[in-house]
Amino acid sequence: MTDQKKLNIPELSDVKKAHERISPHIHCTPIVTSQFLDAKTGAELFFKCENFQKAGAFKVRGASNAVFGLDDATAAKGVATHSSGNHALSLSYAAGRRGIPCTVVMPRTAPHAKKDAVIGYGGTIVECEPSTTSREAVFAEMVAKTGADFVHPYNDPRVIAGQATCSLELIDQVKDLDCVVAPIGGGGMISGTCLTLSHLAPSIEIYAAEPEQADDAYRSFKAGHIIADDAPVTVADGLKVPLKDLTWHFVSNHVTDILTASEQEIIDAMKLTWQRMKMVIEPSCAVPLAVILKNPNLFRGKKVGVIITGGNVDLDKLPWITATGDKQ
Amino acid sequence: MTDQKKLNIPELSDVKKAHERISPHIHCTPIVTSQFLDAKTGAELFFKCENFQKAGAFKVRGASNAVFGLDDATAAKGVATHSSGNHALSLSYAAGRRGIPCTVVMPRTAPHAKKDAVIGYGGTIVECEPSTTSREAVFAEMVAKTGADFVHPYNDPRVIAGQATCSLELIDQVKDLDCVVAPIGGGGMISGTCLTLSHLAPSIEIYAAEPEQADDAYRSFKAGHIIADDAPVTVADGLKVPLKDLTWHFVSNHVTDILTASEQEIIDAMKLTWQRMKMVIEPSCAVPLAVILKNPNLFRGKKVGVIITGGNVDLDKLPWITATGDKQ
Repeated sequence: MTDQKKLNIPELSDVKKAHERISPHIHCTPIVTSQFLDAKTGAELFFKCENFQKAGAFKVRGASNAVFGLDDATAAKGVATHSSGNHALSLSYAAGRRGIPCTVVMPRTAPHAKKDAVIGYGGTIVECEPSTTSREAVFAEMVAKTGADFVHPYNDPRVIAGQATCSLELIDQVKDLDCVVAPIGGGGMISGTCLTLSHLAPSIEIYAAEPEQADDAYRSFKAGHIIADDAPVTVADGLKVPLKDLTWHFVSNHVTDILTASEQEIIDAMKLTWQRMKMVIEPSCAVPLAVILKNPNLFRGKKVGVIITGGNVDLDKLPWITATGDKQ
Repeated sequence: MTDQKKLNIPELSDVKKAHERISPHIHCTPIVTSQFLDAKTGAELFFKCENFQKAGAFKVRGASNAVFGLDDATAAKGVATHSSGNHALSLSYAAGRRGIPCTVVMPRTAPHAKKDAVIGYGGTIVECEPSTTSREAVFAEMVAKTGADFVHPYNDPRVIAGQATCSLELIDQVKDLDCVVAPIGGGGMISGTCLTLSHLAPSIEIYAAEPEQADDAYRSFKAGHIIADDAPVTVADGLKVPLKDLTWHFVSNHVTDILTASEQEIIDAMKLTWQRMKMVIEPSCAVPLAVILKNPNLFRGKKVGVIITGGNVDLDKLPWITATGDKQ
């Protein structure tokens, strides 16, 4: 693993510093349980509710850690990012709290709710096409012009250390977990989870949950190297981005397994959560419950932490109601 | 007020007994706040989240108090009720916990989610037409046949004492409230609120919130006597029923004022709560937020308790998405 030397891998001390730095700007989100879902799965599920987080998602942890860690001169030039949504509004939120500019490159197809929220927090949007290629090209041009500090949505040690504070709270709130399940897109949350748990609770198994239709992390994990899709199509719009070197480091070294779910399984798990837990959650964070329901033997009898990553949904476009208003 | 002698009006001691009796069967629901809504209203809002209650609504408080207060011989014959929904499934839940039968007369037009939940808890449904007249006729016939104990959805001292436990928790969880806003339909929740607050915190103002299109309580309050509509039409389907003598006693003696909101205002407040608080709430319990948004001068600068009465929504029929799938 000699090439790890080139990577700036965050340490446990970075997580603790991050937690101290961001605590004034985030919520310690609650743990919610459901007797109905426990009975249905045979497991004890502890939902870490980042849908109730500031800006509606866990991404505010990493974004705040990056923004509030900048020296004043760098901060003055502002921050910039590309994101399918939650990182964008989280960075806008954090930049707004610090009083610095934030520019966001976002696919023109991103949900209106997320675009409105970015603008609501004072961010500026520059649109690109909905592909990784377009996003990166448009972004490079914008950063060259503004000189803003680039905060990558996940492949950034400051961001991973920030996301890692979620599991830090989780293992303080719930003792003796057997495993944790979190969604995987670019791998920021799962990397943060690996970072914290590998140091503080190495016996806890870490499962990453991914849409079948955007299963690049699953295929990477099985192949032993990063495989990237350019423009996957899934209802879990937060999970379309590929792994990068830093997140691949954590995924390849610390993840127990990656489990996938179909679109219908994701939609069913999302609707079930709304129906029984009365919580608005995004399609992306229904993937963990979907894989738990799909693999009962793996989770039965276990204490399972489930990270509900966000609640920013376009309420006018719900995946179980088709364009004609019919039920799916 | 000589005719009050005929009424069996619950006392504070009944509320305390109820709380002790039902505590093993209900949640002490959390208080949730929203900086966004505080900024928008200029008030400090404390949402008492009965949408996270057992069976998804506050009604389980009154139903459990009635069911667990029965002597064994009466209980063995079962319980019965008519209800537009949440009382029905709450009574089924409570009866199921005690292991006794529960029969429910319910309008054939009630949401599928509510019918399914009643059956899921082991209740039996007998359908009627969606009018108060039909409901009462079908019900009388059924009770004559089964000998079940009638637990009225709201005009029952056991039920009112049960609902009163909600405010008992609220004033313990949030100190120095200036006012409490709760929806009003038949008046069970508002009567319970009056019962608790008039004894323990008489300085707290009590506002009832009602749909304009089912404003029989508003008109009753202004007229000084009960006015009942037979079949009002409103998205707030839990608030269609009229006041009765017991609830009128509390409303006429202790409510500060009744405020109304239009259908669109109710739908907007419901959607705003889903969007910003990430909570699934029923149209009925969006009425308090709707009237707070509509009357900013009344609430600005005040500490306001807002009772979120339930979260049982038919997710296939959301009021801001029309039958053709278009936005409203």
